[in-house]
Order: sequence, then C-alpha cells, then structure tokens
Amino acid sequence: MAIATRDRMLTAAEGLMREQGLAGAGIHQIVKRSRAPIGSVYHHFPGGKTQYASEALQIHGERARALLVAAFRSNKPIEQRLRTFFRGAAKVFEQQGARKGCAIGAVTLDLGPRDETLREVCGNVFASWIDDIALLLPWRSARKRASFALAIVTALEGAFILGRAQRSGEPFIAAGEWLAAASKSRR
Amino acid sequence: MAIATRDRMLTAAEGLMREQGLAGAGIHQIVKRSRAPIGSVYHHFPGGKTQYASEALQIHGERARALLVAAFRSNKPIEQRLRTFFRGAAKVFEQQGARKGCAIGAVTLDLGPRDETLREVCGNVFASWIDDIALLLPWRSARKRASFALAIVTALEGAFILGRAQRSGEPFIAAGEWLAAASKSRR
Repeated sequence: MAIATRDRMLTAAEGLMREQGLAGAGIHQIVKRSRAPIGSVYHHFPGGKTQYASEALQIHGERARALLVAAFRSNKPIEQRLRTFFRGAAKVFEQQGARKGCAIGAVTLDLGPRDETLREVCGNVFASWIDDIALLLPWRSARKRASFALAIVTALEGAFILGRAQRSGEPFIAAGEWLAAASKSRR
Repeated sequence: MAIATRDRMLTAAEGLMREQGLAGAGIHQIVKRSRAPIGSVYHHFPGGKTQYASEALQIHGERARALLVAAFRSNKPIEQRLRTFFRGAAKVFEQQGARKGCAIGAVTLDLGPRDETLREVCGNVFASWIDDIALLLPWRSARKRASFALAIVTALEGAFILGRAQRSGEPFIAAGEWLAAASKSRR
C-alpha cells in the first residue's frame, strides 16, 4: 500500500514535469494529482522535491532510453530508422494532445543556481541516451557516431518545444527527415 | 523615469525566463532584479504576469529574429551560413556561463492549461523566425525551405536544452554541422 502511494507520487511528478516543468511539480500539485496525504511526501521522500524530482526524472529517462534503443537497434538503413522513430514520436505526441513535453528537457530549462543535483541528473540521462544511440549507429568513426547521436537528441528535445508551441507533431517529422538526409551525407 | 522602470522590469523578466522559465519570472523576482517598487508591477502591467511575460517574450523574440535574419541573409553557401551561425551561438552561450536558455523555449515547456495567451505568443514568435529563415534559403521549393527552416529552429531550441544540461556549447556545433550536411543532400 505504501509502495503504491510512492509510485503514484512519482508518476504524478513525472506527468507534471512533462506538462509544466519543475515549478509544476510542487509538493501541493503532487499530493493533489496522486491523491496522497500531504504528510506522505516527506515520509517517502525525506529529501523533498529534489529527491522525488530526481527519481521521477530517472524513471522517465530510463523509459525513454529503452524506446530509443528499441528504435535504433535495427538492421534497417539508418535513414529509415530515423524517419520511423520521429514519425512515431510525432504520432504519440499528437495523440497525447500535443502538450506533453519531455520531463528532462522541461526541467533542464527551469533549473536555478541551487538545482545542481537536478542538473546532473538531467545531464546524465541525456548522456546515457547519446551513448546508447551512438553504439547503434552504423559508422566506424566513434566521433562521428557521438556527434550524430548528440544531434538526434538535440533535435528530439527541440521538437517537443516547437511541437508544443505549434500544437503539432510536424517538428518531429521535419527533424527526422532532415536527420535522415544528413545521415546519408559523406561527412 | 517611469519608462526606464518599465524597461528594467521587462529586461528582468526576459533574463529570468531565460534562466529559470516562467516560474522564475514571478512578480517578486521581477521586482527584486529590476529594483522596482512592488506597486509598480500592476501600474505598468495591468494584466500582471501574462502581460509582462508576453511583452518580454516578444522583445526577446524580435531580437533573436534579427540575429537569425542577419545570419542567413548572406551570399555564402548555406552550409557555411549554418556552421557560422551555430558556432557563434555556441560561443555566446559558453561566454554567458552555459546556463542562459531561450526564453521562448523555456516558457513553452512550462505552460499550463490556463496559459493559452502565452502559448500563442511563443507560437507566433517561432513562426516569425521560421518564415524569415525560409525566405532566405536558396531553394526553389517553398515546402523544402519551410521544412528546413523548421528543422533549424528545432535544432537551435534543442541545443539550449542539451547545452544547459551538459554545460557546453557542443550541442550547437553538432546541430550546425549536421544541418550543414543535410542542406547538401538532394532531398
């Protein structure tokens, strides 16, 4: 029962950060969305907001990492993997109302000078995505793979911003198409 | 004197949104950073936070638009314009401490269901950047130009996220290099 409450609170934190960034995931909002008693926040998360935000970001990051690995672990040509992944992201984004961002991206842009712990969590999550994608790219040069994996994650994060502002999955599709074009260049 | 205070408050709002998103630009923070009397917020901005945030985002958006137009209005090959622009952005980003994001992007990821006015401001600013860049791209197909301009702005916004998380201008450089590669494709 206690574990179920804790999980519900983390799910609430993740959802709120995807929708409204770090400020949206305050203790009162978490309690309200997860229907947990307010006293249970510090019971389950003695470190308060930094603790539950860190845990929720890591869960979100791990789930996204698995999706990225599933998308790029394929024998299909890299341009096809890119188009399929970004088209799928566009579809899910629109199905969810074109308003759910990436929790890591939203929090990264909200961090204040005292949020160094959360910045490290966000930086480590992005690094794990980039490293895993880089391993799955079909090129011999490790430098080229790392640079392209960084460009993929950069475009993905930007697509959540443009997608929300324009209420459309189109930015994901454009990102996938142009990354596919770039992947065929002789760079 | 009154106008100077108003401008100082808008500058404070812009800076705070670049650093910590919408929640960072609350009335108390604006007053503190601009050293304005608290009563002056509603005097200068009867619409409160939505009004000063909208005005500050429009000022920020217009300044960025001018930078984008200056960068892409050139006779140089498009891949060179892309590399120069993104390398310059990386340099400025690092010089400013690798922690200042784009106010429009940060706010876009913070918007709640009641912030439709601000979402429209953000959407319109992005649309103005995309339209202006598209006009300056060297291709006949309007559709290709619009799609690539969207990919440029998407990569730029993503680079602020990855750059902040990794405390590095590298994501801007990778974005510029791969967009340059994509621009040479026969798409």
